[in-house]
Amino acid sequence: MLIKRLSIIGVGLIGGSLARALRRAGVCGEIVGCGRNISNLEKAVELGVIDSYETVPANAVNKADMVIVAVPLGSMAAMFAAIGDALSPDAVISDVGSAKASVVEDARQHLGEHFHRFVPAHPIAGTEKSGVIASFAELFEKRRVIITPLSDTDSAAFAKVSSMWEKTGAVVENMSVEHHDKVLAATSHLPHLLAYSLVDTLAKMETSTEIFRFAAGGFRDFTRIASSNPRMWRDICLANQKAILDMLARFNDDLAELTDAVSSGDASRIENIFSRAKVARDNFCEDKVV
Amino acid sequence: MLIKRLSIIGVGLIGGSLARALRRAGVCGEIVGCGRNISNLEKAVELGVIDSYETVPANAVNKADMVIVAVPLGSMAAMFAAIGDALSPDAVISDVGSAKASVVEDARQHLGEHFHRFVPAHPIAGTEKSGVIASFAELFEKRRVIITPLSDTDSAAFAKVSSMWEKTGAVVENMSVEHHDKVLAATSHLPHLLAYSLVDTLAKMETSTEIFRFAAGGFRDFTRIASSNPRMWRDICLANQKAILDMLARFNDDLAELTDAVSSGDASRIENIFSRAKVARDNFCEDKVV
Repeated sequence: MLIKRLSIIGVGLIGGSLARALRRAGVCGEIVGCGRNISNLEKAVELGVIDSYETVPANAVNKADMVIVAVPLGSMAAMFAAIGDALSPDAVISDVGSAKASVVEDARQHLGEHFHRFVPAHPIAGTEKSGVIASFAELFEKRRVIITPLSDTDSAAFAKVSSMWEKTGAVVENMSVEHHDKVLAATSHLPHLLAYSLVDTLAKMETSTEIFRFAAGGFRDFTRIASSNPRMWRDICLANQKAILDMLARFNDDLAELTDAVSSGDASRIENIFSRAKVARDNFCEDKVV
Repeated sequence: MLIKRLSIIGVGLIGGSLARALRRAGVCGEIVGCGRNISNLEKAVELGVIDSYETVPANAVNKADMVIVAVPLGSMAAMFAAIGDALSPDAVISDVGSAKASVVEDARQHLGEHFHRFVPAHPIAGTEKSGVIASFAELFEKRRVIITPLSDTDSAAFAKVSSMWEKTGAVVENMSVEHHDKVLAATSHLPHLLAYSLVDTLAKMETSTEIFRFAAGGFRDFTRIASSNPRMWRDICLANQKAILDMLARFNDDLAELTDAVSSGDASRIENIFSRAKVARDNFCEDKVV
């Protein structure tokens, strides 16, 4: 058995789906959940996602050989502080945060002697939904999971987290913490900010009700990510502030360029921008693992 | 029979889907296609979308009682000029353009005595694909079609175009030309510009290949519209320039506000923006007809 006792702190979309996937793969013994929302935890037991739950984090990690902290980025530091003294001496700790530098810093400060068995990880998967009822075992299949080990990360702990994610059907890749945060700012964080901002712009218009009424499928897809959890995304903005601001500046420059082209009625400049983007987007969609 | 002889100028995604839907509804006799791409027209005959084709527009509208001009906005003026003298005295003419003021102006200038039987229309439906092979009879089902009649539009012509779209399963609504162009700038044109601009920003980065490799489903949905036809969207930018620039300015102000909130680490301001957007987007998705 790869994992004897798994502790999932935060049994939501990601934590719940990971529990489901590991149980389906038959690589996991007991699964203990932990969280603040009792009805969500009871639902998780009822659905067979976890075997039992604890509401005190220190109790939930007791005797666990694998602890997954799947809470919003802004709650990571407090959670590491809450479990630090209760971890088993051989416990492997990992997370699923969308930004890595801030989590690594939180873990370094609060996990003490256990820090070298902390393996930062980020599954590039999700939906705009939240809670254990949104979880499903197939969420990570053929999706990428990025692991960002540090130079002093324990190699056995690293191998165990890699194996765990491979058992979910995911494709595991490694990169540095800093590189992860830049790449994700570009492909995930910036698009979310733009989607939220666009919907907010439209919602503030006098005719917003009517405007939304005439929106079509393209708009629905474009803004799907604006239905994501506002608190989770607030935390991501704060945790990956620098890389996000860099991407916002780049985007701003390019949008100003496009605006100038539209303003001056420059047909060929507009078409060049659109054509370059179409080629890039069509190429991206040929990639199988996304 | 609602339409005896239908002439579709531009047998692409929209023109082809309209032909298929009307044939399926059994409200249309003969269907003649017209275009510049012979292989697309032959494919359209082979697929049974049209009965025959002409490459000279004046020939294609001969004896037609309904003429649908489904060409890019930048080709409208030349097309109206090409068919103006060949139209039957009772022919109803309509279009499917994504902006209406420019099309109305083109029609006014080139349709002469037939202008009062020109009924501007816009089906709010589509995919990022192009050509008759992408067309399908269900495209307009439960989608809205906006008709923007003028004060001197012939009422029988207006009624015939309304009936035609209802037969495709669409929900027909009327509004003024100016209002249409404002609403569409907000819900369709601005999102397309943002999607194109975002993909272009990422494509220009040194690490673009890797960046796209780590993009997930949210990014795929968000950028789907950036795979749309660059020429068609160039034409829309030029045709609806004023309303689009107004929306770009509004969006810019709001994005600057969000950027400022991120830059100053203002958690509650960020969360307020995201929450407002989530509520608006979730409400929008409850609307059935989109």
